[in-house]
Amino acid sequence: MGFKLGELAELIGAELCGDPERRIDGVATLAGAGLGDLSFLHNRRYRSDLSRTRASAVLLEREFAEESPTACLIMRNPYAGYARAAALLTAAPSPPGGVHRSASVGEGARVAPSVTVGAGCVIGSLVSVGEDATIGPGCVIEGAVDIGAGTVLIANVTICCRAILGERVLVHPGVVIGADGFGIANDDGAWIKVPQLGGVVIGNDVEIGANTTVDRGALEDTVIEDGVKLDNLIQIAHNVHIGAHTAIAACVAIGGSARIGRRCTIGGAASIAGHIRVADDVHLTATSAVPNSIRTPGVYSSGMPIQANREWRRNVARMRQLDRMARRIRRLEDRLGLGRDDDVGPSGSGEQA
Amino acid sequence: MGFKLGELAELIGAELCGDPERRIDGVATLAGAGLGDLSFLHNRRYRSDLSRTRASAVLLEREFAEESPTACLIMRNPYAGYARAAALLTAAPSPPGGVHRSASVGEGARVAPSVTVGAGCVIGSLVSVGEDATIGPGCVIEGAVDIGAGTVLIANVTICCRAILGERVLVHPGVVIGADGFGIANDDGAWIKVPQLGGVVIGNDVEIGANTTVDRGALEDTVIEDGVKLDNLIQIAHNVHIGAHTAIAACVAIGGSARIGRRCTIGGAASIAGHIRVADDVHLTATSAVPNSIRTPGVYSSGMPIQANREWRRNVARMRQLDRMARRIRRLEDRLGLGRDDDVGPSGSGEQA
Amino acid sequence: MGFKLGELAELIGAELCGDPERRIDGVATLAGAGLGDLSFLHNRRYRSDLSRTRASAVLLEREFAEESPTACLIMRNPYAGYARAAALLTAAPSPPGGVHRSASVGEGARVAPSVTVGAGCVIGSLVSVGEDATIGPGCVIEGAVDIGAGTVLIANVTICCRAILGERVLVHPGVVIGADGFGIANDDGAWIKVPQLGGVVIGNDVEIGANTTVDRGALEDTVIEDGVKLDNLIQIAHNVHIGAHTAIAACVAIGGSARIGRRCTIGGAASIAGHIRVADDVHLTATSAVPNSIRTPGVYSSGMPIQANREWRRNVARMRQLDRMARRIRRLEDRLGLGRDDDVGPSGSGEQA
Repeated sequence: MGFKLGELAELIGAELCGDPERRIDGVATLAGAGLGDLSFLHNRRYRSDLSRTRASAVLLEREFAEESPTACLIMRNPYAGYARAAALLTAAPSPPGGVHRSASVGEGARVAPSVTVGAGCVIGSLVSVGEDATIGPGCVIEGAVDIGAGTVLIANVTICCRAILGERVLVHPGVVIGADGFGIANDDGAWIKVPQLGGVVIGNDVEIGANTTVDRGALEDTVIEDGVKLDNLIQIAHNVHIGAHTAIAACVAIGGSARIGRRCTIGGAASIAGHIRVADDVHLTATSAVPNSIRTPGVYSSGMPIQANREWRRNVARMRQLDRMARRIRRLEDRLGLGRDDDVGPSGSGEQA
Repeated sequence: MGFKLGELAELIGAELCGDPERRIDGVATLAGAGLGDLSFLHNRRYRSDLSRTRASAVLLEREFAEESPTACLIMRNPYAGYARAAALLTAAPSPPGGVHRSASVGEGARVAPSVTVGAGCVIGSLVSVGEDATIGPGCVIEGAVDIGAGTVLIANVTICCRAILGERVLVHPGVVIGADGFGIANDDGAWIKVPQLGGVVIGNDVEIGANTTVDRGALEDTVIEDGVKLDNLIQIAHNVHIGAHTAIAACVAIGGSARIGRRCTIGGAASIAGHIRVADDVHLTATSAVPNSIRTPGVYSSGMPIQANREWRRNVARMRQLDRMARRIRRLEDRLGLGRDDDVGPSGSGEQA
Repeated sequence: MGFKLGELAELIGAELCGDPERRIDGVATLAGAGLGDLSFLHNRRYRSDLSRTRASAVLLEREFAEESPTACLIMRNPYAGYARAAALLTAAPSPPGGVHRSASVGEGARVAPSVTVGAGCVIGSLVSVGEDATIGPGCVIEGAVDIGAGTVLIANVTICCRAILGERVLVHPGVVIGADGFGIANDDGAWIKVPQLGGVVIGNDVEIGANTTVDRGALEDTVIEDGVKLDNLIQIAHNVHIGAHTAIAACVAIGGSARIGRRCTIGGAASIAGHIRVADDVHLTATSAVPNSIRTPGVYSSGMPIQANREWRRNVARMRQLDRMARRIRRLEDRLGLGRDDDVGPSGSGEQA
């Protein structure tokens, strides 16, 4: 779908610098763009591509406008502007609506007429699906599930308990919502299953990446608030609560009853223990392990970056001696009559790493 | 399904303190319970909810009975008692049995009359399914698969090799059992696939969480013994052997031919190398990395909990210098004529962390 | 399918030591083999099984031939030879070809006559499937997807964008290819989705393990070159590029736009940050975390192996004091007039770990 550059500027709220009549009908990287393409400069590592771009227009911050060889759309946040423009320029046609002949829809299910239900879907009799939703091929929706307007399950998604999905939720293939939480009670060495009876509540504008799992609550609900974005292969255990507009990268594990705040970002392969709280506006870098609650906003990290294997082997052996090393330092200080470490100077001064 | 409190006490083996005629027809948390609900006190962090609960009865240990404002079911292990009571109170009706018209069942497959086969299932001709089993919608079962009585595959489960599943096994959506193990042989820089010819043997009363993968053995079988409980997104590689009543939390990776003992517990996001042994009764805390065999029962850990990013960056730089730091300490000790570290005092004494 | 030992030696390029007429019709471990089985010695931990084997022949390196109680096939690389022999001996019959009556194939899809399409498959109208390919039960292939000759999707695989799969690609159940990458732009605290418009390009002879996810590119393509082998539950983010003949073990997370070289091996549960490069011939041991580019071939590692929980707790507390410890050592050295650490001796000398 094409736009005039002037229309596009108005639609996304950008300042236009160039010919408003210029046609834009696609998006591309600075290096890959050609005639008719809109591009953008967001990550500064691509700045050197700007002067050579063949794009018909570039979205960028004001400070880079001078370097652009073509028309500019100037914005404070060009990446968000690009997201909006790209959505306009590449909007897919709405699916036609209707239930594929090979789908099984339970008697009593309420499926709005504008809903598209793909081939092979199985929709239980307690399910309700709102206007313009899409249930892609191979999805299984059992239990009392309420799916909001405009929500899209791409394909092969499973929802298998009482669940509410808000509006405009986007669920990628292989996602499982509402499997039993991992509730087990030990009884003289054997495990007894603790029935999982809660549901899942997912807000509006949530996105859930491929093969991610969101377990149902044990007694109360697992909750994912509005605007949360989950990447692929994430584990959300029973009774977890994720605050609005938190974004979580791939392969993160979140333990049962953990409560994550709003506007957090969690890097890939991080793990968060069960029954803890993470405050609003906490940012965890990739591979962080969080065993205890975090009460203060900020950036937190853990994990050890790689070294050459040969050095790592030596250092890792020392890691197991750290407590001894600290006591040996204490003994040396005692011998020299040096005080405790409160006078070793401000951190970062002195010897350089 | 409702019970009289006296019946329930007898069924789960609890000591009743209160009116045996009281009706119980549901379960709830201490804070959320109302008339007719049974609640329980297991995790002491919820003790303060006890005195305010509106539950009709509470399962608890004797020492807390005095604090209860309502009838009590007293047990040594109230969580196991709760698991049993909840199972009785919330038992779902048995599915009706029968094969959905959209399912494909191969000629020669032996499916007991009481089995329920959901919409869209594909069951190969060498499959056998025992009494009262449920094969939920969208499952694909190919190969020579023997499924025991009462076993339930919730939905969208794939089993694709020779496999035996015991009785009362519960398999959650997205699970893949019997995919090829990761067997590759390097031949002058390119990888040749090593045919995977073994099967999977799963005992009775095993539970397998959503999107977990259990590979077939290379030549012999991958084995999961009775009562093992697996959470979501776990990798069980080829030829792994997991002993009875071991419980494994989400996102754990277990390498090929690893042999895990009985009654172990493995915390979330842990990883266990291939070809090693873990003794019975080993407990690994979350994020533990196990590169070598563990021969002694006990609790083991690894991993570094988060710090503020600013401090972590400084400390992590030092981690790469640990071996040097140890040698610098040695040099200082030599200079001062101090002996090796066998006289620095018992661990934990001296300077406090 | 059976062979004479002499035929087999010729087919796999081994030197025969024994009767060329001997019948071989299966493969087994040294300990499990019987009459008619070919076995092999690759991992030296099984050497003690050699002298007791009942195999009809054993593949091994020349140096072990004397210890064999039976006929030998001598090769420099017996594991690769075993992989070839096992493939010959256990070749499954080709599937019959044809489209199952319950599959949905879109008008315009080009499916070669020799292709087998399983029950419940959904194949979109822009899909092309080459000769002798197999699309197993429950697969959903939407978008403009080109599947090469001889490629096999086992079951319940989802492909949902523009994608090219080469020849002889093997895709295990639950794999999702072409889900949207995790592209989000923050706009005053809320996340806007960045449309994901790129595709996925997968070379020849690639294998992709169960429940692994390969996202489509944001604007350009995610690329997996020839001969790459991926284990289960791996995350390949948008715009990742993986060089030919790289092998990646289970539960690895690779961040967006990372570029991994050729002939790398990546151990289980490792994680690689986005936007970095890993050189050719880099080998990462299990659980390695790679935050920055690796420019030099070699073996790299990170992570901390387990300790007894009691010791770990003490050492981990010290980990947070490492920078202080280093400064305390510096202070001691200053007090004693010792130089910087360039004279503490070659690493590995002096005190032993």
